[in-house]
Amino acid sequence: MTGKPLLRVGLIGSGFMGRAHAFAYGIAQKVFDLPFRVELTVLADATAEAATRAAQELGFARGTGDWRALVTDPDVDVVHVTAPNALHREMALAALAAGKAVHCEKPLAPTAAEAREMAQAAARAGAVTQVGFNYLCNPMLRLAREIIESGEIGEIRSYRGIHAEDYMADAATPFSFRNDPVGGGVMADLGSHALATAEFLMGPITRLLGDAVTAIAERPDGRGGMRPVQTDDIARAHLRFACGASGSLEASWIATGRKMQHDFEIHGSKGALLFTQERLNELHLYLTDDPAGRQGFRRIEAGPAHPPYGRFCVAPGHQLGFNDLKAIEIAGFLEALAGRAPEPFGFAAGARIQALVEAVLQSAREGRWVETA
Amino acid sequence: MTGKPLLRVGLIGSGFMGRAHAFAYGIAQKVFDLPFRVELTVLADATAEAATRAAQELGFARGTGDWRALVTDPDVDVVHVTAPNALHREMALAALAAGKAVHCEKPLAPTAAEAREMAQAAARAGAVTQVGFNYLCNPMLRLAREIIESGEIGEIRSYRGIHAEDYMADAATPFSFRNDPVGGGVMADLGSHALATAEFLMGPITRLLGDAVTAIAERPDGRGGMRPVQTDDIARAHLRFACGASGSLEASWIATGRKMQHDFEIHGSKGALLFTQERLNELHLYLTDDPAGRQGFRRIEAGPAHPPYGRFCVAPGHQLGFNDLKAIEIAGFLEALAGRAPEPFGFAAGARIQALVEAVLQSAREGRWVETA
Amino acid sequence: MTGKPLLRVGLIGSGFMGRAHAFAYGIAQKVFDLPFRVELTVLADATAEAATRAAQELGFARGTGDWRALVTDPDVDVVHVTAPNALHREMALAALAAGKAVHCEKPLAPTAAEAREMAQAAARAGAVTQVGFNYLCNPMLRLAREIIESGEIGEIRSYRGIHAEDYMADAATPFSFRNDPVGGGVMADLGSHALATAEFLMGPITRLLGDAVTAIAERPDGRGGMRPVQTDDIARAHLRFACGASGSLEASWIATGRKMQHDFEIHGSKGALLFTQERLNELHLYLTDDPAGRQGFRRIEAGPAHPPYGRFCVAPGHQLGFNDLKAIEIAGFLEALAGRAPEPFGFAAGARIQALVEAVLQSAREGRWVETA
Amino acid sequence: MTGKPLLRVGLIGSGFMGRAHAFAYGIAQKVFDLPFRVELTVLADATAEAATRAAQELGFARGTGDWRALVTDPDVDVVHVTAPNALHREMALAALAAGKAVHCEKPLAPTAAEAREMAQAAARAGAVTQVGFNYLCNPMLRLAREIIESGEIGEIRSYRGIHAEDYMADAATPFSFRNDPVGGGVMADLGSHALATAEFLMGPITRLLGDAVTAIAERPDGRGGMRPVQTDDIARAHLRFACGASGSLEASWIATGRKMQHDFEIHGSKGALLFTQERLNELHLYLTDDPAGRQGFRRIEAGPAHPPYGRFCVAPGHQLGFNDLKAIEIAGFLEALAGRAPEPFGFAAGARIQALVEAVLQSAREGRWVETA
Repeated sequence: MTGKPLLRVGLIGSGFMGRAHAFAYGIAQKVFDLPFRVELTVLADATAEAATRAAQELGFARGTGDWRALVTDPDVDVVHVTAPNALHREMALAALAAGKAVHCEKPLAPTAAEAREMAQAAARAGAVTQVGFNYLCNPMLRLAREIIESGEIGEIRSYRGIHAEDYMADAATPFSFRNDPVGGGVMADLGSHALATAEFLMGPITRLLGDAVTAIAERPDGRGGMRPVQTDDIARAHLRFACGASGSLEASWIATGRKMQHDFEIHGSKGALLFTQERLNELHLYLTDDPAGRQGFRRIEAGPAHPPYGRFCVAPGHQLGFNDLKAIEIAGFLEALAGRAPEPFGFAAGARIQALVEAVLQSAREGRWVETA
Repeated sequence: MTGKPLLRVGLIGSGFMGRAHAFAYGIAQKVFDLPFRVELTVLADATAEAATRAAQELGFARGTGDWRALVTDPDVDVVHVTAPNALHREMALAALAAGKAVHCEKPLAPTAAEAREMAQAAARAGAVTQVGFNYLCNPMLRLAREIIESGEIGEIRSYRGIHAEDYMADAATPFSFRNDPVGGGVMADLGSHALATAEFLMGPITRLLGDAVTAIAERPDGRGGMRPVQTDDIARAHLRFACGASGSLEASWIATGRKMQHDFEIHGSKGALLFTQERLNELHLYLTDDPAGRQGFRRIEAGPAHPPYGRFCVAPGHQLGFNDLKAIEIAGFLEALAGRAPEPFGFAAGARIQALVEAVLQSAREGRWVETA
Repeated sequence: MTGKPLLRVGLIGSGFMGRAHAFAYGIAQKVFDLPFRVELTVLADATAEAATRAAQELGFARGTGDWRALVTDPDVDVVHVTAPNALHREMALAALAAGKAVHCEKPLAPTAAEAREMAQAAARAGAVTQVGFNYLCNPMLRLAREIIESGEIGEIRSYRGIHAEDYMADAATPFSFRNDPVGGGVMADLGSHALATAEFLMGPITRLLGDAVTAIAERPDGRGGMRPVQTDDIARAHLRFACGASGSLEASWIATGRKMQHDFEIHGSKGALLFTQERLNELHLYLTDDPAGRQGFRRIEAGPAHPPYGRFCVAPGHQLGFNDLKAIEIAGFLEALAGRAPEPFGFAAGARIQALVEAVLQSAREGRWVETA
Repeated sequence: MTGKPLLRVGLIGSGFMGRAHAFAYGIAQKVFDLPFRVELTVLADATAEAATRAAQELGFARGTGDWRALVTDPDVDVVHVTAPNALHREMALAALAAGKAVHCEKPLAPTAAEAREMAQAAARAGAVTQVGFNYLCNPMLRLAREIIESGEIGEIRSYRGIHAEDYMADAATPFSFRNDPVGGGVMADLGSHALATAEFLMGPITRLLGDAVTAIAERPDGRGGMRPVQTDDIARAHLRFACGASGSLEASWIATGRKMQHDFEIHGSKGALLFTQERLNELHLYLTDDPAGRQGFRRIEAGPAHPPYGRFCVAPGHQLGFNDLKAIEIAGFLEALAGRAPEPFGFAAGARIQALVEAVLQSAREGRWVETA
């Protein structure tokens, strides 16, 4: 360990995702043979007091109420941005300008233009970047991609992707930043995950025909009144892929009863794949080459045959959890930082997803197909 | 039994659906207290010989190679049309002209115009008619509708419907009548079921935005060559319902691995419903009123609490099969014939579904929303 | 059809199972190419009036209040006994004495001694007999046996069988014939099914170590008082099979929430099988020969590859129901009557199961292993 | 954090469980507000070299090839024993003698006598101890116990517990310490988990009737020959609980296809519970109080309503993994060390389980019920 270079981490934000990043470092340092010694150096939050408290809780050396100080801190090598989406651009650009590597939570920015600007800045800086599309880190998704790429299920013909939750299903849930007309809505928040998975597995989406619905017309404004909602509660798209397949995609945050339905179903000429995040340690595989009378979807349980599961546990079936996926994400980022492997989900990829999000919404507004090649 | 009036049945066709109708009468006569004594009088098939053989096998008194004789036979009260789709119109119109009640398998006709003509003819004749949307006869679908109508899951916000099979997934499957440019394609064949279920549960679809894909460009022509395919292998639509909800629909007959995925998921403000035909004796219900920490989709198994299950079995969990659904369909038809209850799925409803099928395909061709109110 | 010999059926009883037999004939006549023309000749019930009403309802030519007249009726070829268990012996012996073929519902008789007597009488008479172990008629169980016998899952090592329902779970359910100390109890009622499935799949049980529990000590006697219960509500056994495998078995009728849990799990040296009657159209198969990283239980859906499913439906995934299983049972009986195939579940087999039921209860009483070879 | 007392950890072993303990500390330090500052001080392994390497990998300050030095090290407060079972007793007694708190992996010792000796030593020392029954740390198991204790499912009547895996199913897997006649076998290895869960949920087992089977008679001895196996590959027991319920239990390590089937099903007078470790973030609950026609097992997904899930993730449905369960275990241990809460699974509990393991095997040998109250 002593022979490894040091990597000093700065984290902006200590909410859901900020905590997940801190947990992920805790796990990744144990589970993986990381290319760095990691030091959790500084955590920035809204106030110095909150930052100090969170730093202590999450194992950072110190806290700061000034994120600008963090991103220019000479003692920080890599910056994790988990602040609200509206701030991503400013923070990331500042960090890039200061020569940092940057991980930014998804969505990269409220608009595709901003996201593109960030990707260009990262490219100019030659920085290693990552966007937090954690579901892609699941060994079962990697297995799915491997099965597709190997040709095991033949030519891919169709795709169905869903990301549905219900955390906005209660009409009494107040208007929040998620309902902001710029960058808000379910397609940006959850649909971005579904888009990322779709392209991860299937390659580029070339055209789409979108639909976006505001199902809950107004929400409490927190001051005793109601505020009209303009953003999408459900968004859908018909898809075409460069590989020749067609598909569909749906995002909903008012899917009552669904807590984490990040699902896909893929049909090929020689087989099929099913997955639901509700059972994230399973992938279901159908093969037409199985003998007649013996065909069926087989339920593959995650195990050491599906890297990097074996880093977490030597026995199959013991299961990874959500924070483990974040740890795999972090480990990949550090591999990229060490130059061992390219980061497949850098800012360019994040900007791509954001462009797709906007394409869905634009297509929905205009009621016509939009090119996304 | 002796006090009941006689009903004399004529059946055209003895394929998959012709057999299913004969089975259904066999079951319905035992299971239900039908308003008629049923006599299976005559079966028509392509040739007299085939008809006689099928009549013997399926318990009809006699066979005929002449369907025209059957539809005008004074000894026939009700005509069942299970011949290929292209013949539905001619047969049904002839039967209606002869004063018969008519059951016609779906789709009612290759084109919406023909289907409308049939519906108008039925209305003019004042005939009792039925179209074979058998999945709607499942007690679990009736339960779903009851739950929706009762308000148990609140205001309905979204719908997702799928009918996917894989019987055309093999590119070596020859070109057939199903690929006929007029009336062929998956939206007509399987999508019609999905549309029927959608309107059965949700009420009228008012607008839709379709997508239709030919995934297998050519199929063997049965004469050693290949024939180009113009019909849809997969079709999809974004939907709007008169009730205010939005939704989506997908039909595929190249969904490798899927044998009978007639599924829906419905989200309301107070609950949700899930169903898959792969487990047709179950309905999954989520209620937000369940106590915190105890919420979840509950798996309701079909039982005597879900009429008419109790006619088939006094104990819950013993399960109905596909032919039982057809028996429920037939029993409903006979109730309508006896004037006890209106037939909800007569020719008018069949024409409605056919119009929706065409609307999806038209919308797909034109790449724009189409009104269907 | 006209060339086929006539088979005239007499049915004793018109309750749950009596109705199921009538339904089964209705289905079987349509679905199968039976070796006989079937005539439902006479139905016997407690009173002439009830019998006449049931005969009309279920399609029998006439009814009688005198079962003795039925079993000696020269116009009856085969007698179906679905009366309460306590009457099985007397009815079946009378029918055998009159030269009839006899189907008797399970359990064959309240005691193994009586069952043995019936089996001996059947053997002496050279009669074709059948006992109603309908679950064995499921194409998926036949598939399971075929997989075992073919060696596909290697040497069989262990078995777990369960039959659990909850229809006696309410302590307010009155004392009934099922609680009769002679022949009552869950092992006789439901455990008999589990034992039949175990030996159907695994071959003979050679030794067992039983456990029997009365969980609800008293039940309403129907006259305002309570009556102590001596029969088993739950019964279990450790098992040894002649094939060398070990196993376990459980029967419960107080398994709250379970409506029809007739399950088994079988582990072999090269694979495994899972089944639950709750999804009776599926069998789950695991094969160690599947490639590493691609192994998993595959969910096989019933289809034409699994005879006689194809008689019911030409397309896979459409599903059979409980009454269809009874129809397969009846069709098998008629095959045996026609001399085309031996009936695997005649009275001898029924007596065998009854002997096993008693062995479990005896072993439970004595707290020691009992030989059953 | 600075105000918290320091806890210095010594770990013996760096295999599957040693790593899991290290991972668990990494996670627990982030996720929980632990009562201590934790220092991973020293790791002992077979050789100094292996220990040093593992220490670096797992984040311990130093390594040692001498476990005796570790257990008496004045810089160590708590000792984790994850060495092979045969060494547990010696290591734990030495650590207790040195005044350490001790966590010992299950099974506590090869024999109940040794385990009892260890428990007595812990009691004499007044030491805080813990045995690694990690499955009990699952929020869903805690929810199950809460539901039982609250009376939500009424009087508990029956229990079915299974722990089945297949890692010894291949007859070519060599003879190992797991096959050692003293302390080996599946009941000790996996059955101990099933027993722990059974008593965790149901309270004390008072009597049992066991069965133990050696299914694979000999295994490769690693020197080219074969070695006879005397230990159990499958073990089962009929159970009686102090609460009045009966039950059954099965352990198998030759359950082909099963990777982690740690399951239970519990029937009460007013409801039921189902659980499988294969979907460890779900608990299925049935309530007879649900309205007629709406009853069914509801699938409860783990969320913040089920402590301590919320420490790991603020959103429901994101799922915990195996290592998270170990982190909860560790956090509980530290709570006990801080005197905040008693440790429910100390050495006394571990000795209890070991006594039950022996009781099953003794009962199996003698073929009779054994008292375990």
